[in-house]
Amino acid sequence: MNIIDGGVTTPKGFKAEGIHCGIKRERLDLAMLYSERPAIAACAYTQNKMRAAPIELMIQRHTDKIQAFVINSGNANAITGPQGMKDAIAMSDSAAKALGIHPQLVGVASTGVIGRYLPMDKLEQGIKNIAGKLGSGREYDHRANMAILTTDKTIKEAACQVTLKDGTVVTIAGMAKGSGMISPSMRTKHATTLSFITTDAVLSKSPEWKWQECINKSFNMINVDGDQSTNDISVLMANGAAGGKPVDDNHDFWEAVLYVSQSLAKQVVLDGEGATKLIELKVTGAKSDKEARTTGRWIISSSLVKTAIFGADPNFGRVLAAMGNSGSEFNIDKVRLTIGSNGEEVILFEGGVPQVKPCSEEEVKARKLLSEHNISMHLDLGVGNGAAEAWGCDLTYEYVKINAEYTT
Amino acid sequence: MNIIDGGVTTPKGFKAEGIHCGIKRERLDLAMLYSERPAIAACAYTQNKMRAAPIELMIQRHTDKIQAFVINSGNANAITGPQGMKDAIAMSDSAAKALGIHPQLVGVASTGVIGRYLPMDKLEQGIKNIAGKLGSGREYDHRANMAILTTDKTIKEAACQVTLKDGTVVTIAGMAKGSGMISPSMRTKHATTLSFITTDAVLSKSPEWKWQECINKSFNMINVDGDQSTNDISVLMANGAAGGKPVDDNHDFWEAVLYVSQSLAKQVVLDGEGATKLIELKVTGAKSDKEARTTGRWIISSSLVKTAIFGADPNFGRVLAAMGNSGSEFNIDKVRLTIGSNGEEVILFEGGVPQVKPCSEEEVKARKLLSEHNISMHLDLGVGNGAAEAWGCDLTYEYVKINAEYTT
Repeated sequence: MNIIDGGVTTPKGFKAEGIHCGIKRERLDLAMLYSERPAIAACAYTQNKMRAAPIELMIQRHTDKIQAFVINSGNANAITGPQGMKDAIAMSDSAAKALGIHPQLVGVASTGVIGRYLPMDKLEQGIKNIAGKLGSGREYDHRANMAILTTDKTIKEAACQVTLKDGTVVTIAGMAKGSGMISPSMRTKHATTLSFITTDAVLSKSPEWKWQECINKSFNMINVDGDQSTNDISVLMANGAAGGKPVDDNHDFWEAVLYVSQSLAKQVVLDGEGATKLIELKVTGAKSDKEARTTGRWIISSSLVKTAIFGADPNFGRVLAAMGNSGSEFNIDKVRLTIGSNGEEVILFEGGVPQVKPCSEEEVKARKLLSEHNISMHLDLGVGNGAAEAWGCDLTYEYVKINAEYTT
Repeated sequence: MNIIDGGVTTPKGFKAEGIHCGIKRERLDLAMLYSERPAIAACAYTQNKMRAAPIELMIQRHTDKIQAFVINSGNANAITGPQGMKDAIAMSDSAAKALGIHPQLVGVASTGVIGRYLPMDKLEQGIKNIAGKLGSGREYDHRANMAILTTDKTIKEAACQVTLKDGTVVTIAGMAKGSGMISPSMRTKHATTLSFITTDAVLSKSPEWKWQECINKSFNMINVDGDQSTNDISVLMANGAAGGKPVDDNHDFWEAVLYVSQSLAKQVVLDGEGATKLIELKVTGAKSDKEARTTGRWIISSSLVKTAIFGADPNFGRVLAAMGNSGSEFNIDKVRLTIGSNGEEVILFEGGVPQVKPCSEEEVKARKLLSEHNISMHLDLGVGNGAAEAWGCDLTYEYVKINAEYTT
């Protein structure tokens, strides 16, 4: 696997663009993603029962082939009743008309404020405009990425290449947005966080199961604020433009998809609302991978763990309390917790007892490590071979400010 | 039911005291509660699997009669291994010796920093001292209340009286602590938040089921930060000193216990770390009471709802998104959400569509109501007769400060 500098239009046969159509005051707010031929698709949607109109539409359509995606930011078209559903259909119809393809092949996604109607005149005019401007290359990637952001500070993208045994080089690339309302618990046909992964590899059918597995190890293991969104969607589109054999069961290909997904997931957390630190948590020694994932999610979701990390406080008690709340099995005499940064680490708990005394040299070292921006944490539950990784961020004054002072 | 000014020693036959023994630097840190005769007790403990030593001890003892409770603050004696268990037993033994009663009749509770050993020399000396100082009256109540606080700003107490049909007047009173790590999901023999309710009523046996029902409508419906503690305990002690008939199935008595429990629970939320507002949420129209409770807990736990309330933002979308995440059944066309304060209210959502337009007069009114300290919210799910009440607080800069800047 070769990590490359690339974006959604790096795989062959994909085009994109991002423009300002007038939903937001100034920033880009409308993106389009287009494949020269219909792509095999796997979609995953939020499990929140309060689904936005575009999600509802996508689920009703049972889409497994997609040629274009139209995405707006600044307005979520969520909890907008029958009018919202009409608007989502109109978005899809406008894009289909402008591109000369069937509406069934057009995916729709929205993100932004909940509970307001879309300004359809501006949006439909925007869709007409953007369809004529599509192109490939880093500038197009960049503008498409910019146009799907809300409270995000940075764009999120990742790309890599895999050379198949027959010599075919396939490219996998993705973009994502997400900063708040991030607590994905995605299922194929049910998921959370806005992300689009393109590839020119050949897939013979919609890879729902593999895509679920990939999501379980990436987007489903991040948390910013515990609130699962009404709107998010995660899509894999494979248009086969690279040729070669189908990769449905190709290990290297799926490793590469996992790399792109994990990279995007981490970028979402790192740009979490108000976040100043990335927490990379490894859970091992669990009864099963599932219990390891559950434990990981509880820990990175804990407000007390998140504020302790913000304050550079090696408060292992909060981590173990969150472990206890997860309901997963552990053997306290064998539980081991370390925290670290830049390759250095401190053991906080081992052999059933705390390892760092208040005001000790070790505590000073732990505080120093926790004041870095990249925090690693390793928790072994001491009962089995289950393992998982999870990614979270700290809870800061800025998070409160962003969510108290603005309607988002 | 007569609401009175009273505390844990107002019911006949109860004494209490609170002193400084040296766990904290200056503030009171050791409380004792004593009944002149052994009291029928119902205890509920945290469901967190990472249980503190005193909780572990209480569960092992299967206590259903209690004559005295010794409680320290400033140190949770949690995640302290075998030494912690020895210390919890020593606390109970010291108190039993000082009071001349059997150790089985002594309850033990701790709250404070996790993962540090108790200073047993100071604590045992303190227990000797406090046993000789017990008394009844508002000053004793007050000092006992003070001695169980941690990051709390105020004491929490409530009391009321009920006159039984035979003319007997029984008194019910309680004290509680709790400010952070508050997300109770208590079960009798498994619960969360530190609270002690005393009564001189006669109970013929431990009222586990009734106590569970009461907890389900009070402490189990509050949330400060989503983190269930390792330490919390909720106790009802009935010493029968008032005489009269047993109240095991007396409706008025249990209504009075519920009043005291709900009053204490609301006081805990109102003193939630950094909280500036109390959110009183009523959920109706649910498929069942259980689904109403689940929905209520999801909404008051949502960081986005909590920050919106802090910012006085009538962001109904965040409330309905949290409702969607609860998994409970709803009929969007019949869902109705109102917010209010001081008897006035604004309808935010009804008939499947938002009711308040951006920048409208109604929005200005909603913002004004949300800037008050006591916010009421009513959500009808439109599918059945299930109902529940839940209480939460806002998420503020001060919450982040308290939990990032201090080891708690």
